[in-house]
Amino acid sequence: MTPAPVRVVVVGADAAGMSAAHQALRTARRTGRELAVTVLERGHHTSYSACGIPYWMAGEVGSADDLVARTAEQHREAGIDLRLGVEVVDADLSARTVTTSGGEQVAYDELVVATGAPAVMPDWALRPDGTAYDGVGTVKTLDDGAAWLDRLAGAGDGAHVVVVGAGYVGVEVAEAALRRGCGVTVLTRGRGMSMLEDEMSERVNLALCDAGVELVLGAEVTGLALDGDRVTGVRWDGGSRDADLVVVAIGVRPATEFLRGAHAAGTGLRLTEGGALRPDPHGRVADHVWAAGDCCEVRRRIDDRWVFRPLGTHAAKHGRALGDSLAGGSLTFDGMVDTSITRFSVGEVHLEIARTGLSRADAEEAGYDAVALLTEGTTASGYMPEAEPIALWVMADRTTRRLLGVQVVGGHGAGKRVDAAAAVLWHGGTVDDLAWMDLAYAPPFATTWEVLQVAARRVAERL
Amino acid sequence: MTPAPVRVVVVGADAAGMSAAHQALRTARRTGRELAVTVLERGHHTSYSACGIPYWMAGEVGSADDLVARTAEQHREAGIDLRLGVEVVDADLSARTVTTSGGEQVAYDELVVATGAPAVMPDWALRPDGTAYDGVGTVKTLDDGAAWLDRLAGAGDGAHVVVVGAGYVGVEVAEAALRRGCGVTVLTRGRGMSMLEDEMSERVNLALCDAGVELVLGAEVTGLALDGDRVTGVRWDGGSRDADLVVVAIGVRPATEFLRGAHAAGTGLRLTEGGALRPDPHGRVADHVWAAGDCCEVRRRIDDRWVFRPLGTHAAKHGRALGDSLAGGSLTFDGMVDTSITRFSVGEVHLEIARTGLSRADAEEAGYDAVALLTEGTTASGYMPEAEPIALWVMADRTTRRLLGVQVVGGHGAGKRVDAAAAVLWHGGTVDDLAWMDLAYAPPFATTWEVLQVAARRVAERL
Repeated sequence: MTPAPVRVVVVGADAAGMSAAHQALRTARRTGRELAVTVLERGHHTSYSACGIPYWMAGEVGSADDLVARTAEQHREAGIDLRLGVEVVDADLSARTVTTSGGEQVAYDELVVATGAPAVMPDWALRPDGTAYDGVGTVKTLDDGAAWLDRLAGAGDGAHVVVVGAGYVGVEVAEAALRRGCGVTVLTRGRGMSMLEDEMSERVNLALCDAGVELVLGAEVTGLALDGDRVTGVRWDGGSRDADLVVVAIGVRPATEFLRGAHAAGTGLRLTEGGALRPDPHGRVADHVWAAGDCCEVRRRIDDRWVFRPLGTHAAKHGRALGDSLAGGSLTFDGMVDTSITRFSVGEVHLEIARTGLSRADAEEAGYDAVALLTEGTTASGYMPEAEPIALWVMADRTTRRLLGVQVVGGHGAGKRVDAAAAVLWHGGTVDDLAWMDLAYAPPFATTWEVLQVAARRVAERL
Repeated sequence: MTPAPVRVVVVGADAAGMSAAHQALRTARRTGRELAVTVLERGHHTSYSACGIPYWMAGEVGSADDLVARTAEQHREAGIDLRLGVEVVDADLSARTVTTSGGEQVAYDELVVATGAPAVMPDWALRPDGTAYDGVGTVKTLDDGAAWLDRLAGAGDGAHVVVVGAGYVGVEVAEAALRRGCGVTVLTRGRGMSMLEDEMSERVNLALCDAGVELVLGAEVTGLALDGDRVTGVRWDGGSRDADLVVVAIGVRPATEFLRGAHAAGTGLRLTEGGALRPDPHGRVADHVWAAGDCCEVRRRIDDRWVFRPLGTHAAKHGRALGDSLAGGSLTFDGMVDTSITRFSVGEVHLEIARTGLSRADAEEAGYDAVALLTEGTTASGYMPEAEPIALWVMADRTTRRLLGVQVVGGHGAGKRVDAAAAVLWHGGTVDDLAWMDLAYAPPFATTWEVLQVAARRVAERL
């Protein structure tokens, strides 16, 4: 008699969950384990690129299908029992069951939590019944994207879009709305992109203005102006602005409500105050429970701190390590160094925006004696037509000379320059490593001393 | 009585020499040393970008002045006694003097050799008096560049240019000639760019053909067809081709003839068979003798081997470390990892070409059990209009899992991707580091698993 297959139940069918499911099956073929993989997804889409939605809104991506890396059929062909439209509302870790909104109990031997992090919708955006007012929405799911395409088409030429939030999504949606010919206002309670130091986010702010965005900093939205259920404007403390459409891009929150009971029951599964999980490098969060993706925090290697960074690339990596480990492999996700990138590109304005490592505030909190410097240069040799301005912020620790963080804002070719710095951070290298290592030079691509290395050298000279 | 200043004599006024001279003066201000810096340069230009000359030929760079980073006047204003048109023909390391072609003896306390590496001109290109036939030249100095601008203007529309050599300069000059509207033939005795593996250079070859280049592989040039002193064609074993102009781009050779006597005299100064110097990380080659730049080999950290890689970025770095050390500082140039980059970009064809680390042949010679794999992907998420094809070749050692080499050929944004791999090589990291580290992801810049990491992961899975 062959043993019964291990019942793996994955909750959530996006990057982390499906990476885990496929890798588990791949590894199981090697390790000889029998797995029966079920995936429960409350939505109707799988493995789609949420990051691509602003570009779909902009008209750069042809259709939602293009954003889907693998369809439900493809997952099923791989032997995965995928159930769409099934929401999990509770979990009993002792009984090893989850409960769906339909009241069904699904038994598991191994549970994988990959529920992601839906966009936060503030009270002021919601009708009493909990749905958003007409013309108001977030940018997270394919349904969100489809709704925005309808709203933009309906609003017609010259519609005015107010974007609440100036994070990555806020800036990307501002680009999309401008490309669609809309007027755009970006409202943020802070000083601009908060993942950048002020001297860097300032450059993004100027680019937004150059591209015709009305930018309101330091404005905490308090409510909407309405005509019936339809938005006509946005109000903040001391101000207001007419609007045809309002995009809410103020962040996301882990979808872990269904684990509240398990958390309270002292099962060993712990949620952070923000509701996030903290899986080990294999993806384990408790006995027979695993997690990966946007419902988790990730460990930042530099200061060994857990931070909430919902990003597809972390989700895919952690999901893969999880799936492998669950099926008897040994892959691990050994944290990250807080790298991220975006762009703001409309007409003549093209700005690439990236960061890796700690912010000044992070460094102070971790007790580093940090020295940081802003350096300006060009992306190619100054005499080449390809040369565009680039600004780099580099921070290092005075005592150990360790590189701590790099931020970049500049023209074509600026953004991915952070990757070399991310590699140094990954290896725990110094600012001298960054300054003296062997990066690629030729006139169309860099200055003789690559600008990233000039920036590092300047910091090195001040330590 | 104050001590007499230390007499520093620098031979050669390009990147290495002038970096050394300026850094020595900077460091001397800090260390309190008195330096009298004299620079002897046989040419009439200083601190110019030889790498930029093909782009000047193409018409992309306005004038020779744009290629000069610092003029003679600027060097002199910094307190450097710069003497142009002074060639050094001999050195007496015991007497601590160098002799100029004019017969002058110049005494030094510290000698800095930064003579660079002139382009190699084969016998078949030369008249009996040692000058090149009309219409034939190399691409190395500003005078070369000016001569090419004259020749191209004189040859007029539809001139046919034969480029001998398919290294970086050969490919860059082919681009320049195409952009000037010339017909172009590239002749090479090998299979194409020899700094790439065949499966990668093949892609460059195809791009050359797509852009209209006539490419002749495996052809060793044996002579020219001439009309008087003017070139009319190129002959090789078994073939020939009409030509209006012939660019010789078969390499460079260290300008160290003036040290032959010192080498033979057993002063401790050693030249390699190819005539190169091997300075230590501070730039020392013998007592009171220093060297940096293209007249030197550089140490490749991965396999601890000396190789000849005449590149401006190594020259600038080593020159700086040298100047600092000479003046009492402690900066070092700790070798390189064999990174280089170029592009081939004409009309619709745009190819970025880069490498870092060892070739397969290098790895075999160093005794690694190397596993290499070619991976194809895109430079951005597949659904983005920015996505262009990219091919990556990744090699790692089976035993230690160490990353050994990465090569890249692809569209916009492909080339500088090697920098992240170069950083891993610099730190002696593994192919797993490259696969799992935290590189920047957003749809316009990368796939969710950055293609460089997919390529690394595929190799990791085969070790």
